[in-house]
Amino acid sequence: MADTSAYVPPVDDYAFLFAEAFGTDLVARATSGALSAEDAVDALSAAGELASEVLAPLNASGDREGVTVIDGQAKTPAGFPEAYRAIVEAGWITAEAPESAGGDGLPALVQAGLGEMWNAANTAFALCSALTTGAIHALDAYASDDLREQYLTRLVSGEWTGTMNLTEPQAGTDLGAIRTMATPNDDGTWAVKGQKIFITWGDHDVAENIVHLVLARTPDAPEGAKGISLFVVPKFLPDAAGNPGERNAVTTVSVEHKLGIHGSPTCVLEYEGATGFLVGELHGGLAGMFVMMNSARVGMGLQATGISDRAYQRARAYAHERMQGAVLDRPAGTPIAEHPDVRRLLLSMASEISAMRALGVYVGDLFDRATDADSLRLAELFVPIFKGWTTEEALRITSDAIQVHGGMGFIEESGAPQHYRDARIMPIYEGTTAIQSNDLIGRKVIRDGGATVGRVLGEAADAIAMLESLDHPVAARTAARLERARASAEEATAQLIAFGMTRDAYAVSVPYLMLLGFVAGGLMHARILAATLAHDAQTDADARRIREADAYGVYHLSRVAGLAEVVAAGEIA
Amino acid sequence: MADTSAYVPPVDDYAFLFAEAFGTDLVARATSGALSAEDAVDALSAAGELASEVLAPLNASGDREGVTVIDGQAKTPAGFPEAYRAIVEAGWITAEAPESAGGDGLPALVQAGLGEMWNAANTAFALCSALTTGAIHALDAYASDDLREQYLTRLVSGEWTGTMNLTEPQAGTDLGAIRTMATPNDDGTWAVKGQKIFITWGDHDVAENIVHLVLARTPDAPEGAKGISLFVVPKFLPDAAGNPGERNAVTTVSVEHKLGIHGSPTCVLEYEGATGFLVGELHGGLAGMFVMMNSARVGMGLQATGISDRAYQRARAYAHERMQGAVLDRPAGTPIAEHPDVRRLLLSMASEISAMRALGVYVGDLFDRATDADSLRLAELFVPIFKGWTTEEALRITSDAIQVHGGMGFIEESGAPQHYRDARIMPIYEGTTAIQSNDLIGRKVIRDGGATVGRVLGEAADAIAMLESLDHPVAARTAARLERARASAEEATAQLIAFGMTRDAYAVSVPYLMLLGFVAGGLMHARILAATLAHDAQTDADARRIREADAYGVYHLSRVAGLAEVVAAGEIA
Repeated sequence: MADTSAYVPPVDDYAFLFAEAFGTDLVARATSGALSAEDAVDALSAAGELASEVLAPLNASGDREGVTVIDGQAKTPAGFPEAYRAIVEAGWITAEAPESAGGDGLPALVQAGLGEMWNAANTAFALCSALTTGAIHALDAYASDDLREQYLTRLVSGEWTGTMNLTEPQAGTDLGAIRTMATPNDDGTWAVKGQKIFITWGDHDVAENIVHLVLARTPDAPEGAKGISLFVVPKFLPDAAGNPGERNAVTTVSVEHKLGIHGSPTCVLEYEGATGFLVGELHGGLAGMFVMMNSARVGMGLQATGISDRAYQRARAYAHERMQGAVLDRPAGTPIAEHPDVRRLLLSMASEISAMRALGVYVGDLFDRATDADSLRLAELFVPIFKGWTTEEALRITSDAIQVHGGMGFIEESGAPQHYRDARIMPIYEGTTAIQSNDLIGRKVIRDGGATVGRVLGEAADAIAMLESLDHPVAARTAARLERARASAEEATAQLIAFGMTRDAYAVSVPYLMLLGFVAGGLMHARILAATLAHDAQTDADARRIREADAYGVYHLSRVAGLAEVVAAGEIA
Repeated sequence: MADTSAYVPPVDDYAFLFAEAFGTDLVARATSGALSAEDAVDALSAAGELASEVLAPLNASGDREGVTVIDGQAKTPAGFPEAYRAIVEAGWITAEAPESAGGDGLPALVQAGLGEMWNAANTAFALCSALTTGAIHALDAYASDDLREQYLTRLVSGEWTGTMNLTEPQAGTDLGAIRTMATPNDDGTWAVKGQKIFITWGDHDVAENIVHLVLARTPDAPEGAKGISLFVVPKFLPDAAGNPGERNAVTTVSVEHKLGIHGSPTCVLEYEGATGFLVGELHGGLAGMFVMMNSARVGMGLQATGISDRAYQRARAYAHERMQGAVLDRPAGTPIAEHPDVRRLLLSMASEISAMRALGVYVGDLFDRATDADSLRLAELFVPIFKGWTTEEALRITSDAIQVHGGMGFIEESGAPQHYRDARIMPIYEGTTAIQSNDLIGRKVIRDGGATVGRVLGEAADAIAMLESLDHPVAARTAARLERARASAEEATAQLIAFGMTRDAYAVSVPYLMLLGFVAGGLMHARILAATLAHDAQTDADARRIREADAYGVYHLSRVAGLAEVVAAGEIA
């Protein structure tokens, strides 16, 4: 069997996105000139090298080996602790932390590239630093000076890792149902008691301490979501010198036996009067968690892009090596990549991944420039779209990657099944697609009467006009296809607003989210195409980008009108 | 966790399909009155009991345990040998064998119900009898009296099982590349030498002997597909009394480590001069295999229906037990099944499964009535459509079943992941979807200038007219949606014929196949709806069927126009 496991970081694509597709130097703009697009590309090159040489080779072995619990301590797959040290020592945890927390504060649009590459190389492993970054954001926003000193500094340095403890058996999507209880101790600390499930990297052996962020109720708290507070509960309580000291009363009951991401310890944690520290306001816990949510959900979109690209790279490599049957109109010895249907699958995948990647940069740029309520609203509109659309589509892309392999794709040793299995959690965690779509229609579309979506559709209209002004057949076709999709999106939005916050709207919120995702992808290709056609000499990369814009229009924009029909129908009686 | 593993055989749906949707008694017509729809339903009830009580409980344990090879002998999961004996003793292998081979010759439309139920209960297990039935068909068509006596009788009785040995490392889709060599021995037998891979149930411990049907070249045979012959190679050579005697020179090298169907031994077999017996004409081996192909491919569609329904039943059971969050416009204590998005997912799944099930019966009926070339052509048109469309759609349905479970859906113990994993092989084996679609456009659409497809679209037009004549809003909506889909299919067919046998046609053959699949599903719902609306009193089942027709139109017929756009585009340059 050919070795198709190599991972090639898409650094050139990011260089193009940073410096051409959306303007001349987004990075310089985001950093007031402190960094340039070239600096960012250098950073991505270095990270890409670590990703492909250190993390990627542990992806399949981590999947096979999985996580075990020995004497109440989770043990990660061979090589994970060393790889984590390499990430920390290269400074990547610090690089992604905000400056206010003592980090380097890389702009979100550069973090988009990092997020994609870590996840493409090794999703199960990448979750550890992703959760840590999330915890850093929450503590940076809400923690007291004392907690910042004790915990935040250790997270930012990478010495300790962080977790989010939300879910309980009866409280998944509905966090108001949380029962874990924190009772005040005499010394100002809290005794935390209860069971948390599905805790990603809830226990492990890659760092010396773990900072759990735990949602819990307090005595006499109001019912539901308004009575929930946020606590820091360390695995080891810091000693006088701030180093890991006494073991706290939180035990690892078990790790889950999951469909995928086997290298990531998904723990059941039992808090048995563990010592905790209140973060932020009493009963203000959900607000603290919501701080993490935007970046965590954007991070899911990057994860979807990464897993999709890894699966695609593997399928492409296989298709370019495998010979099978005569290929119509091609010389003998042509590999299966040129069979018309295999070529269709590869182009369908590649064109969608390019749209996802561009959208990650675009959304990062929106957040980097979100200085007022208006621009933040636009950025936040894209959070559920980016998370929901990319994670749902990653299921089809990783499935197509199996299909390209034929029978070999069903054999675990080919590597293709792992991506399919790993991807399946993405439309579920950090809020299911339905949660994303309810956030989208409720807070972001119906509430402002479609004003923010209207701005996006206006941008699409501008891009269409620009493509129409270019004398190129693919530009003309793409403009026509995007215009039909834009019109469908306009109709669907009007229909949704007419429904109001009724069951009809909620019944079609996911199809509506997907519709906007496809349109956003079309907008990305319009921008890529325009920047590409501005080049004098057409390189191979240019030719690929033009072909992908065409393919995206055919394979993906063609799905928009059907989704608009679903939206129009509301709930089936 | 709720036990959601119970399997409820859809016997009532088959009763409706046999006696109402397509006429008053299809079974009586197929058996010249020897059996009635009621007899068939009784048979399905009995089989359903065996499926749900004996096979279904071994599905998850078989997946966990998998297959091992001990001293060159494959060992199946606990309970499988006993379950196989139960199937044999109840007479089901014999029931599905043709009368010409000494079986009961149940009509294909009744076997549709059996095939769905065996696969829903335990796909990995069901493959053993499916392969045996395939071998029975091939031997019945081509074997000499001697081979019939020695092997066919033992297969029909269920004492021995059968396999199909096609694939080699370099010869998957392209069977012309087969290198396994059969050299004549002095006594008229052949010495077979070579390696075969991906041999389903290639070795096991559920029966005393295995009859391998092996494709091999012979010395001086023509190159490619025209030089391939078919051989019987038994695991044990029969002794003078016809019982398993000397071990033949075929060894089990290994079993594959697969994404799913872990309970099914997928073997690498090494033939080291094993004694074989020629079946049929020298160099006529592929013809022998093609005999099995129609029934095997239809069998795949039934498998897709079965896995989809089991996944759906599990999701529905979970959704009706699980409480999470307040449900809009529903009283407190309403389970998640009534959340608008969960309800959408369940209806989308159910409506498509009902279309698949009806199509299985419809295609079975076409074969049962295929007495001339014309009717056979119509039946055979549906083989690639039924196989391709149902197996591709089963991927989305088993994925949606995970989504309904939320986080629990990613945990293996929930049972949902197994269906997702098991389903992934279906669009690959028995010919990938691209192979189905190339068969469809090449042999069945372009060759006759769209005449046969035209008959199907004509039937759709009749069904539309009939729905329009009924005074019912769902009938009116379904007629309008099906008419749009029919028109799209007509355009797509004309476009395809205009392409001719070019790369443009092959590049869109899969989207074209899927388009026809959705239209065929719409035709099924039109027939179901008309039969349902003929009832005076509307039962719960009636209400469900009406709702499903409506849902199918919204969620699935809405996808047809987009597929027609893809077909129109041809290959992307």
